Amino acid sequence: MAEESEFKKGLEGVVAGDSKICLVNGQEGKLYYRGYRIEDLAANCSYEEVAYLLLYEKLPTKKELAKFSKQLSKNRKLPSNVIKIIKSGSKTSSSMEMLRTATSALASKVPEVSELSQEDRVAIGISLIAKLPVIVAYQHRISSGLELVKPSSKLGHAANFLYMLRGVEPSDSEARAMDMDFILHAEHSFNASTFAVRITVSTLSDIYSAFTTGLGVLKGPLHGGAAQEVAMMMDQIGSPANADSYINGILEKHGKVMGFGHRIYKTYDPRARILNGTAKRISEEKHDTAWYEIAQKIERMMQQRLNLYPNVDFYSAIVYKHLGLSLDINTAIFAIGRTSGWVAHINEQYGDNRLIRPLDNYVGQVDLAFVPIEKRR
Amino acid sequence: MAEESEFKKGLEGVVAGDSKICLVNGQEGKLYYRGYRIEDLAANCSYEEVAYLLLYEKLPTKKELAKFSKQLSKNRKLPSNVIKIIKSGSKTSSSMEMLRTATSALASKVPEVSELSQEDRVAIGISLIAKLPVIVAYQHRISSGLELVKPSSKLGHAANFLYMLRGVEPSDSEARAMDMDFILHAEHSFNASTFAVRITVSTLSDIYSAFTTGLGVLKGPLHGGAAQEVAMMMDQIGSPANADSYINGILEKHGKVMGFGHRIYKTYDPRARILNGTAKRISEEKHDTAWYEIAQKIERMMQQRLNLYPNVDFYSAIVYKHLGLSLDINTAIFAIGRTSGWVAHINEQYGDNRLIRPLDNYVGQVDLAFVPIEKRR
Repeated sequence: MAEESEFKKGLEGVVAGDSKICLVNGQEGKLYYRGYRIEDLAANCSYEEVAYLLLYEKLPTKKELAKFSKQLSKNRKLPSNVIKIIKSGSKTSSSMEMLRTATSALASKVPEVSELSQEDRVAIGISLIAKLPVIVAYQHRISSGLELVKPSSKLGHAANFLYMLRGVEPSDSEARAMDMDFILHAEHSFNASTFAVRITVSTLSDIYSAFTTGLGVLKGPLHGGAAQEVAMMMDQIGSPANADSYINGILEKHGKVMGFGHRIYKTYDPRARILNGTAKRISEEKHDTAWYEIAQKIERMMQQRLNLYPNVDFYSAIVYKHLGLSLDINTAIFAIGRTSGWVAHINEQYGDNRLIRPLDNYVGQVDLAFVPIEKRR
Repeated sequence: MAEESEFKKGLEGVVAGDSKICLVNGQEGKLYYRGYRIEDLAANCSYEEVAYLLLYEKLPTKKELAKFSKQLSKNRKLPSNVIKIIKSGSKTSSSMEMLRTATSALASKVPEVSELSQEDRVAIGISLIAKLPVIVAYQHRISSGLELVKPSSKLGHAANFLYMLRGVEPSDSEARAMDMDFILHAEHSFNASTFAVRITVSTLSDIYSAFTTGLGVLKGPLHGGAAQEVAMMMDQIGSPANADSYINGILEKHGKVMGFGHRIYKTYDPRARILNGTAKRISEEKHDTAWYEIAQKIERMMQQRLNLYPNVDFYSAIVYKHLGLSLDINTAIFAIGRTSGWVAHINEQYGDNRLIRPLDNYVGQVDLAFVPIEKRR
């Protein structure tokens, strides 16, 4: 099959479908959700507003937002069997493992996507957007030996998550930083997890399966797992004075510096630019600018030496540190943000579906003579 | 981005990577695992032999097979927390939901693929190939209100599954039919679930995540869920005398007859040809040829009227019926067979990895003016 043997490894640059959800302009470093510039959304919106935009293709009015926020808030209760699973497994599972298992366990004889109305699909999506943060908070509290904190209906999505995680209400500034981080992670076109979510739906499987897929794919260090690795690097560097020699050490061995470079962005990741500001602000508020200073140094070195720019994971790590979030839930926080993007893609894929099933270029043998087991060696 | 706007919907005909595992020649209706014709493997091998071939790229000697079979048999024990999950959720979950949740729950702080040796990766793969049938059997017994049956170390993979499911040792003929069905479902190149498994690994996520993805994708009616729909159709038709009018009724409304047609095969699916023989044999042995006769009638009609051929799901449904397998586990049985193919693809993807991340063709709006919430309508 010589004519088929040319292909793009990792489907790099291959267009896999139409979409109206997100535009990533990697050359110019621009990002749009439903046509709106990410800078506008991050500066002006709550996560609830952005989730609404992704799901309903318009920014909500005050009334629509209030209704939507209430729906999210009402869906923060987990079924007792899922709480049981979290209680019994949290000491032995990582946060992403538990999030994947508990999300899968939320499904009980749910209909396939094709048996649901658009409204029903969105309702399940909203329920999942609301419940995943609760799973992460419960898993964290249990694995840390802490009492569970019930959701607070007076708090918004981001603030409630911090409250359930830490047991105290966050300051406005903290809640805003969390909100902004969720917004910046909400959506990013056909990234690996979202594309796999769409494949799941393309077989007409159900929404919980699609989410479980998304979580398993996002977990990888080349995808959602990167912020955690950035945090580990910052922790090892420790002080701004050590940054130069640490990075030099990696570059001399042609190693990879985490948080730099991106398949699509060939310039500054606009999300990193926004989070840079948030990281600076919160570092100053907390009177601990060491990581931020380290980051500035690394950023300069990487740009001068390799012409590489930081991606969203790079500054996320600093924001999470100053929100007091433990390192092992970094990837799960990314997942919480990405849920609304997944719901948008589930609906879009189902709305104009065709089974996603590529071919491989077979490079193995053919027509081998079968040898009975007695004669094999 | 006009230059990128031409693409193949569902990645139809698009080559997504090299592979040495499986050749599907859809034009000629030929199928090879690791270069061996499916007819040879189905006629001469046990599932264990075929799984070994897929994993180790060679047919095993007697000694290698004995060792491999023992390894599978020793891995049939589930951790107590997973048994607890199956016990508490089986009444409210479908078999595929429970299989997905319990498979996810098997993982407890497992390393990502990149932190494992090839040997460790295969060992986890073997453990999963061994454990998934146990999960399905336990889920089925519990949801049917039956006592759990412990695995029998003297039975092979297929026979043990039937034993744990039904509580009595199967006849040789029954075990052979189950074996053959597992072999025919073991592998099929870059099908939707396998491709999504490879995407999961491409982010360097872990093997349990990859399996959980595979299960969620396979669950869809356009993929593994089809045999179940064929069984429901056969059940509705009931007697060979009703077949003509039933199928005519569907075709007049331009409806879809389940179990016919395939993205890749443009002629007879070689797996369906083999299972046709198995279905005939077992129907005669059980003195109940109604479904088989219905199938023959439908096959003739579909070929004459639409030039469509049965796929593997079509005859699977009949085999499962005569093995006394309840309809709701049909998709899970497909999954059990496919596990060895997934392990082969996990290893192959990791061995020459590149993140799988396509692009979309953005057809939405750009640079919309942001409107503050007070002014929206």
